[in-house]
Amino acid sequence: MSEPLVVGVDVGGTKTQVRAVDSEGAVVQDVVVATRGWEASDAGAARWLARTVTDALGGRAALTVVVGAHGVETVEHARELGDRTAAVLRASVTIVNDAELVVPAAGLQDGIGVIAGTGSIVVGRDRSGARLRAAGWGWVLSDPGSASALVRDAVAALLRAEDAGRPDAVLRAHLLESVGVPDVPGLVHRLSWAQGPERWGDHGPAVTGAAAAGSHLATEVLAAGAEALAACVRDLVSRGADGSAVVLAGGLLAAVPEQRERVADAVRRFVPGAHVRHLAEAPVAGAVNLALARCGRGS
Amino acid sequence: MSEPLVVGVDVGGTKTQVRAVDSEGAVVQDVVVATRGWEASDAGAARWLARTVTDALGGRAALTVVVGAHGVETVEHARELGDRTAAVLRASVTIVNDAELVVPAAGLQDGIGVIAGTGSIVVGRDRSGARLRAAGWGWVLSDPGSASALVRDAVAALLRAEDAGRPDAVLRAHLLESVGVPDVPGLVHRLSWAQGPERWGDHGPAVTGAAAAGSHLATEVLAAGAEALAACVRDLVSRGADGSAVVLAGGLLAAVPEQRERVADAVRRFVPGAHVRHLAEAPVAGAVNLALARCGRGS
Repeated sequence: MSEPLVVGVDVGGTKTQVRAVDSEGAVVQDVVVATRGWEASDAGAARWLARTVTDALGGRAALTVVVGAHGVETVEHARELGDRTAAVLRASVTIVNDAELVVPAAGLQDGIGVIAGTGSIVVGRDRSGARLRAAGWGWVLSDPGSASALVRDAVAALLRAEDAGRPDAVLRAHLLESVGVPDVPGLVHRLSWAQGPERWGDHGPAVTGAAAAGSHLATEVLAAGAEALAACVRDLVSRGADGSAVVLAGGLLAAVPEQRERVADAVRRFVPGAHVRHLAEAPVAGAVNLALARCGRGS
Repeated sequence: MSEPLVVGVDVGGTKTQVRAVDSEGAVVQDVVVATRGWEASDAGAARWLARTVTDALGGRAALTVVVGAHGVETVEHARELGDRTAAVLRASVTIVNDAELVVPAAGLQDGIGVIAGTGSIVVGRDRSGARLRAAGWGWVLSDPGSASALVRDAVAALLRAEDAGRPDAVLRAHLLESVGVPDVPGLVHRLSWAQGPERWGDHGPAVTGAAAAGSHLATEVLAAGAEALAACVRDLVSRGADGSAVVLAGGLLAAVPEQRERVADAVRRFVPGAHVRHLAEAPVAGAVNLALARCGRGS
């Protein structure tokens, strides 16, 4: 009978990755499935999680499981969901928010994680180990520097520019084409009412594309978004987080190197001495590293 | 048979006022009805409008009708709707956007109207008489200084303050009580997803109330909203509008004298020499004044 595995899981908004390693740390299984049927606060969440892990392990048993899960916002919720999943899996299960995988995925024990994709969040820990976060309050009112916020801010800036008689033709053209409407009233109607914030992030490439095509307004919006993320990092440092290492991750920062550089530059300006790196590993590596550490095999 | 009447109509988002005057300018009828069944772009809009006027006149005929109508955004739309309404009413009918009633309601021929209620819009005319507008793009992304925008901006400011470890207990308490939720995550969920922007304006009193109770953050949001409206006035002046007279109107500015003063002060700073007044008349008076001018009886 083979030895039980050490397992890391990253439950994201759209896909879930399960990676299992043996006692040497060698990868035995690495599976990606759609995050379908997952609702973190749902009664079935523990069963879904246990079944997803069991299916991925192909008959082998889990020893220690660490899960970074989208939508798990409180310590109490994480503990309760972990206990229920552990009872089904008959293994040690620890659950954290998926944003908390970024720093360990970079092989670090401490630091600040910055994730900017459809949404954004900045996470760290204070000296007592308590979790700190900034942003991540949702696309409508929060999430600076995310694709959703960049579109929201770009449209608002476009409207102000139109009103002031200083239209930005490049940004306007990129946004109209991306949204598929003929004019600015159509753009506003679509993004405010017909589709709404759930789809703002889809049009992020229109903003970065407009900046690349010379739109000053788009460039200003991208710079402001980068600075707003850096301000979140500075806020966590002021609340006691260790800002010497800052790890950047998320779909937007992976896809747009120019914006990643803007964020990195802004973090270095706002937090002098910060060592900023981009996460090359998949976040699931953070869950594996945390699981290895929990059974005394961490680096 | 009595002489036909001169009629002004204000079709607002929730109520419609019809006021008819005789050849001496004396008020003969003044009726307020719910704006129920009105959809400016609907095929039945002309019929609704004609019936509403006919019902209000109590059997007397209309000679000249001017309508300020919510939702009429383009010159073409206004002309087409006016022609169709005229055909039913057998009278001269002119339609403008309801925001354009504010300046004539103050008895002025030229100037800039600032309306801030649930939404906001700033309107004027350039030297050729063409309509200019700023803001009024809807509550989600636009409408600075409106009740909706003040709530949106106050919640965003509250979230940033919470993230930075500088919570504003007064603003938080006022918003939580108004929205009826126990904590900030509940507030965000309700205002972002469960209710959404349609209801933001309802919580305007929580922002002005927090400012009155000493919240610095709420006061900053109110000041920024006032300055954003004043910036719209400055924008229209830079595009050729006559900024010597600026008329303030709308439910928010009528209900909150402190905010009206902030807007007036900001307009005076941004447009030196502007004479700022608050509209004491109902906007329907503007429609009546425009109608009297059209039949050569205007002041």
